[in-house]
Amino acid sequence: MKRMLLIGLGWAMIAMAQPGDPLRYTKSGNLVLPADYREWIFLSSGIGMAYTSDASSANPPFENVFVNPSAYRAFLKTGSWPDKTVLVLELRASESQVSINKNGRVQTTGSVGEIHVKDASRGEWAFYRFAKGAPEGTLIPKTENCYSCHEQNGAVDTTFVQFYPTLIDVAKSKGTFKKTGE
Amino acid sequence: MKRMLLIGLGWAMIAMAQPGDPLRYTKSGNLVLPADYREWIFLSSGIGMAYTSDASSANPPFENVFVNPSAYRAFLKTGSWPDKTVLVLELRASESQVSINKNGRVQTTGSVGEIHVKDASRGEWAFYRFAKGAPEGTLIPKTENCYSCHEQNGAVDTTFVQFYPTLIDVAKSKGTFKKTGE
Repeated sequence: MKRMLLIGLGWAMIAMAQPGDPLRYTKSGNLVLPADYREWIFLSSGIGMAYTSDASSANPPFENVFVNPSAYRAFLKTGSWPDKTVLVLELRASESQVSINKNGRVQTTGSVGEIHVKDASRGEWAFYRFAKGAPEGTLIPKTENCYSCHEQNGAVDTTFVQFYPTLIDVAKSKGTFKKTGE
Repeated sequence: MKRMLLIGLGWAMIAMAQPGDPLRYTKSGNLVLPADYREWIFLSSGIGMAYTSDASSANPPFENVFVNPSAYRAFLKTGSWPDKTVLVLELRASESQVSINKNGRVQTTGSVGEIHVKDASRGEWAFYRFAKGAPEGTLIPKTENCYSCHEQNGAVDTTFVQFYPTLIDVAKSKGTFKKTGE
C-alpha cells in the first residue's frame, strides 16, 4: 500500500511538473536557445518578408515563427501574451528544383535568427540575436529600432500578430488587436 | 492517507492518459479533421510547389505540413513512421503588401487540403481529401496517381521527407532515406 502511494505520488509529481522552462539565461545575460523549439506551436511562415520594397531576392529566405505552448494556450484564452512568452524566428534558405518539385520553393537549411521574449523579471519584452547555429543569443540593445517598430506596428503587445493567421481572429474577438496592425 | 493515495492515483491516471487519438473515422469511412492539428509538430512550409514546371502563379499558395506528436517522436528514434501516423497538408493563400510588410509574401486564409494517414487496420497508407473548411475528408481512391507518385518518389516510406529539413538527417542516419528522394 505504501509503495502504491509512492508510485501514485511519483506520477503526481511528473504530472504537475511544468514542461522545461522556455527561458534560460547564461550568467552573462545571454539567452540560451530552447533545444525543443521545433516542437513548439508553429504560428506562420513567410518568405522574403521585408519592410522596404527594394529588398527582393532571387533566393528569398523563409521565416518560420514558433511560440512556447503555454504562452499559445494563454493567448487563445485571453488574446494577450503572458509573462514568459518566447517567440522564435527561424530563418531557412529556400530552393526550387529540389527532388520532384519543379516549381515554387521549399525550405532547406537554416537556424534561429532572433528570439523575442516577454520577461517581467528583465524589463518585459526583449530581442536576442543568434549568430548562425549559436547555442545562445545576445541581447539587442533597447535603443535599436526593432523595439520602436514593434511598439508602433505590432498588432498585439508589440508582436506582429497580424502575420499569424490563426491568432488574428482570437485577438480581434478579445479586443486586443490594434488597428495599426492592419 | 487513503485520500492522498486516491489523489495520487488520480494524477497518475491523468499522467498516463494518451492525448486524443489523431485518427477518427465516420461510419461511412470518412476521416474526421483532427481539431488540434495546428498544435501538432510543424514539419515544413513550401510555396507554390508543383511537379510540373509550367505551374507558376502570381499568388502561389503556401503548403504547411504538420504531423501528430507521437509519430514525430517515433520518427526521431527510428527514422520510420509508426502505425497511426497522420500528416496534414494545410494550404494557405499568400499575400504581399500586408501591414508593414512591403516585400515577400505572408500567409493568410486557408484550410486543410489533404491528410495522409498510416493505419494498419485500413490497409496502411491512404490519402483523404478535404473540401475547403470541411470537417471530414473523403478517401482518395488508391488507383489515383498520388499513391504511385509517393510510392516512387517519397524518400521514406511513401512520404516526402526530402522536403522536411529537420527529418532528412534523422532518416539518413537511420538508413531509411531512399535515394529516389534526392
